[in-house]
Amino acid sequence: MSADAGPAFRGVFPYLVSPLDASGGVREDVLAALVERLIAAGVHGLAPLGSTGEFAYLSNDQRLAVATATIRAAKGRVPVVPGVASTSTADAVAQTRAMVAAGADGILAILEAYFPVGEAGVEAYFTAIAEAAEGLPVVLYTNPNFQRSDLTLPVIDRLSRVPNIRYIKDASSNTGRLLSILNRCGDRIEVFAASAHIPACVMLIGGVGWMAGPACIVPEQSIALYDAARAGDWARAMEVQRSLWRINELFARHSLAACIKAALELQGFDVGDPVAPQVPLDAAARDELAEALGAIGAL
Amino acid sequence: MSADAGPAFRGVFPYLVSPLDASGGVREDVLAALVERLIAAGVHGLAPLGSTGEFAYLSNDQRLAVATATIRAAKGRVPVVPGVASTSTADAVAQTRAMVAAGADGILAILEAYFPVGEAGVEAYFTAIAEAAEGLPVVLYTNPNFQRSDLTLPVIDRLSRVPNIRYIKDASSNTGRLLSILNRCGDRIEVFAASAHIPACVMLIGGVGWMAGPACIVPEQSIALYDAARAGDWARAMEVQRSLWRINELFARHSLAACIKAALELQGFDVGDPVAPQVPLDAAARDELAEALGAIGAL
Amino acid sequence: MSADAGPAFRGVFPYLVSPLDASGGVREDVLAALVERLIAAGVHGLAPLGSTGEFAYLSNDQRLAVATATIRAAKGRVPVVPGVASTSTADAVAQTRAMVAAGADGILAILEAYFPVGEAGVEAYFTAIAEAAEGLPVVLYTNPNFQRSDLTLPVIDRLSRVPNIRYIKDASSNTGRLLSILNRCGDRIEVFAASAHIPACVMLIGGVGWMAGPACIVPEQSIALYDAARAGDWARAMEVQRSLWRINELFARHSLAACIKAALELQGFDVGDPVAPQVPLDAAARDELAEALGAIGAL
Amino acid sequence: MSADAGPAFRGVFPYLVSPLDASGGVREDVLAALVERLIAAGVHGLAPLGSTGEFAYLSNDQRLAVATATIRAAKGRVPVVPGVASTSTADAVAQTRAMVAAGADGILAILEAYFPVGEAGVEAYFTAIAEAAEGLPVVLYTNPNFQRSDLTLPVIDRLSRVPNIRYIKDASSNTGRLLSILNRCGDRIEVFAASAHIPACVMLIGGVGWMAGPACIVPEQSIALYDAARAGDWARAMEVQRSLWRINELFARHSLAACIKAALELQGFDVGDPVAPQVPLDAAARDELAEALGAIGAL
Repeated sequence: MSADAGPAFRGVFPYLVSPLDASGGVREDVLAALVERLIAAGVHGLAPLGSTGEFAYLSNDQRLAVATATIRAAKGRVPVVPGVASTSTADAVAQTRAMVAAGADGILAILEAYFPVGEAGVEAYFTAIAEAAEGLPVVLYTNPNFQRSDLTLPVIDRLSRVPNIRYIKDASSNTGRLLSILNRCGDRIEVFAASAHIPACVMLIGGVGWMAGPACIVPEQSIALYDAARAGDWARAMEVQRSLWRINELFARHSLAACIKAALELQGFDVGDPVAPQVPLDAAARDELAEALGAIGAL
Repeated sequence: MSADAGPAFRGVFPYLVSPLDASGGVREDVLAALVERLIAAGVHGLAPLGSTGEFAYLSNDQRLAVATATIRAAKGRVPVVPGVASTSTADAVAQTRAMVAAGADGILAILEAYFPVGEAGVEAYFTAIAEAAEGLPVVLYTNPNFQRSDLTLPVIDRLSRVPNIRYIKDASSNTGRLLSILNRCGDRIEVFAASAHIPACVMLIGGVGWMAGPACIVPEQSIALYDAARAGDWARAMEVQRSLWRINELFARHSLAACIKAALELQGFDVGDPVAPQVPLDAAARDELAEALGAIGAL
Repeated sequence: MSADAGPAFRGVFPYLVSPLDASGGVREDVLAALVERLIAAGVHGLAPLGSTGEFAYLSNDQRLAVATATIRAAKGRVPVVPGVASTSTADAVAQTRAMVAAGADGILAILEAYFPVGEAGVEAYFTAIAEAAEGLPVVLYTNPNFQRSDLTLPVIDRLSRVPNIRYIKDASSNTGRLLSILNRCGDRIEVFAASAHIPACVMLIGGVGWMAGPACIVPEQSIALYDAARAGDWARAMEVQRSLWRINELFARHSLAACIKAALELQGFDVGDPVAPQVPLDAAARDELAEALGAIGAL
Repeated sequence: MSADAGPAFRGVFPYLVSPLDASGGVREDVLAALVERLIAAGVHGLAPLGSTGEFAYLSNDQRLAVATATIRAAKGRVPVVPGVASTSTADAVAQTRAMVAAGADGILAILEAYFPVGEAGVEAYFTAIAEAAEGLPVVLYTNPNFQRSDLTLPVIDRLSRVPNIRYIKDASSNTGRLLSILNRCGDRIEVFAASAHIPACVMLIGGVGWMAGPACIVPEQSIALYDAARAGDWARAMEVQRSLWRINELFARHSLAACIKAALELQGFDVGDPVAPQVPLDAAARDELAEALGAIGAL
């Protein structure tokens, strides 16, 4: 499979939660129901094992089980782009191979770090994942808030020249950095926003969509926003954006996974609690969330 | 004068530098020439004594001299909104009164802090400035990166109910926060962007303009961007924005004051060096700056 | 085994590196040789799988292999206290059980976090490990620089009341915090220093020893320092301390694991490189390290 | 006066508060009474205009008035070392000259910064103050928490070669850094601790005393600690240290100036409130403070 194979990723890719039972097994039926609901709403792809998917709390076996169940449920209707995250290059390569073998349509590549890693190490890590992805598109994940070693502009520039590194997902709140990436890398890399960004702004500056937890619980509204932006109807886009922003604000105030899991429970998906010692939302936060979802017709 | 008096502030307000001679005196002729050039280019207002104006390096006497010279040079053609900055409420009030007496058209209110200040103290500080401003419009300045005590959303909400606190200038790079302010405070407060933001995005979400150092050296281009955004011609706005962004990037990499002063020297304004122990740009940075300005026809 | 069983931990516990071959297998012979050398030098215990041991880069299988090889090599001559680290309570409990079954003499308990964890979650995490340790002594690991969720004084106070939570190892550089812990918790918990602390100072305020990477490469000198401090010969202790401090400074400037591995290679232990994408020390750093080790007779 | 003139600074130098009346005037009588009380208790010097002295909240005129009143009250019995703090070299030089003319016995030199300053600028700033001090001893003030541009080890090394730069006061909590300075600069510079440090530890590693707010309110106890440390009676020193540490902890939790002012009010010195918008301690904090002071006989 070549780097040019397959349709481009664009649009709304919800970050899926990882529904687990008490013994840590994946609740495949719940995940399947959620996938069905999101595809019915019109999402353009699915991103299991991002921050929202609690990758940092799951073993490699659990991660693969989540990805496999998602791929099985999606049945090829939309691309599935699971996260691969590690502190170790060898482990990231092994995870990537397993995801490719399981039928993933792309890889969201995340570097974790304990000791800081220099530019050369960062570049080598992502390049190794890209090679292991066997031509599948790779999405670089960059998040200066959660990562001790992040991607600098020169490293992004160099990585954008690897043929199958085709996207970048920025999880900071600095929209200016996205414009810097677009100006510098041009057509070599395309930008997805995350939930701390204002998607309408990211679309305006040339982004191609967003990968974010909130899209899990407000998929129709997210798609309406995307469609308005794509059509150049910015007044309409901002109208939808303004109503959706409160949801993003709520998520910024709580743990992302706890918040999306609570919202999905409210919507009838029995996804369970975040992995302990994380704690579920308390009653007040849950009420506030219910009120916000209700206000935009998402409950 | 009532809080409703005078036309609203909107558009491009360049942050002026503070040109000083060797003994610390204000070079009034240089400042006047710069003001003339900016007004000729069509700027909508002038903002002396922001970060770019090195307020943190000047005595109160020097600050007043800069503001007075600017007001004198502007001759009422555009509003002049000088910065007032202090760690002490009493000193901020005294500065404000002096600016009002000197003929300022509004006050940009900045809180400096050494020990952190709680929400009540922050609110009291800005309220005291607003009262001392005698009905002139007050612009709240918020910058989490440079201030130990910053404005939270609830404090901004409360301050927006003070009649003559009518604007907020956010100097972070978090555009999402601007949308949160707009959603929460509605018509009670209007938003100006700063140089770390993408002005086109801020205009899209409902901002009314920007106060920023780069507008000092690329005023025509800044106004072209503003006009395109106001006309809803977002494709054109983004085209201008993309070409201007490199200037903002350069400023983010160097000390703002050093960078704008170097650029103005390149453009023929003898504004001198930044206040020591700050150092002027080195030759390499100056060359890079000259090249970037040349590329957009600003030299 | 009760919480009171076994002699107390005190003295010098070197943090062991994790020597791996190219395919990620543990070099048991290298580890055994290192253990032999350290016990011959008189160390009081061994701490595999701390930061220096690259726990954050190893799979659970690799971690268990490192601990098992260490326990086997130590042959009961000194206590072996391996690290258990996870983002997930369930996983930490499983790791602890495996370490207990492998014959560990205590557990160094480390909380990793991706999303911040509140006080209740932090307390629950460490309590669960203590319970799984079946009476073996637990050492709390606290490091505000490397952990998103750290132990506050009130949580340490509460945890110190769990019978087998008997020690705390603080990896900050804030010695004052150690005195605060000692003042607050009294006899309920004993303090070990880490390599960012000055061990002589920690001993003066009542600490019982240190767990640190540098003790791996300067064990005799470390024990001389410990003995002088225990004897109340503070002048002698400071003389040794001053000569050793340069080693600690070097480690603070580089990645701890890379630095200790390089030093051990210089001393003839073929421990290999740090786990990629971490990179080994460059030649200049290696030379500086060799010079510093030579100066104190450690080469 | 040469750099060698006068006895060396050593021992306990309380950081004085700045007692102001409602209109911002210095309460000279209150300051004189406090100076009298501290000299009677045996302090070795006086340090007005440190953090505790709210230098960051006072105009240059207020600062000079505080220093002058202190010098007048001390009547040459102990050295008075006022703080000089600025963002601007020229202003710092002018402040220094005024302090020398007023009869100061040394200068505590503080760099404030808004934009970060590089190493060359930092070095030039302190060198200019040393020159303006006309041979009086200069104490470098270093505080990475409160300063955007701090002193690196290489800069401290170079500055220690300026003849009258003879001391350094470190306001971090990293005791290891002090040992690094002592190891590197040897006899060229002597170290004073601050209130975030454990003075007994700093004395052990070779410090010559401390400059700190708490010494203002527990002078006898501070001197007892100093005397024990000087005599090498470390057991006694730690006994006193342990009882005093709670006072330091309290100060770390509140604004230093607010806390010392509240304590002095409790002790009968009418020093007033901290400069607004800082707020005085609330009743609960005041009660806690009274209880802590009572417990060590300081009320």
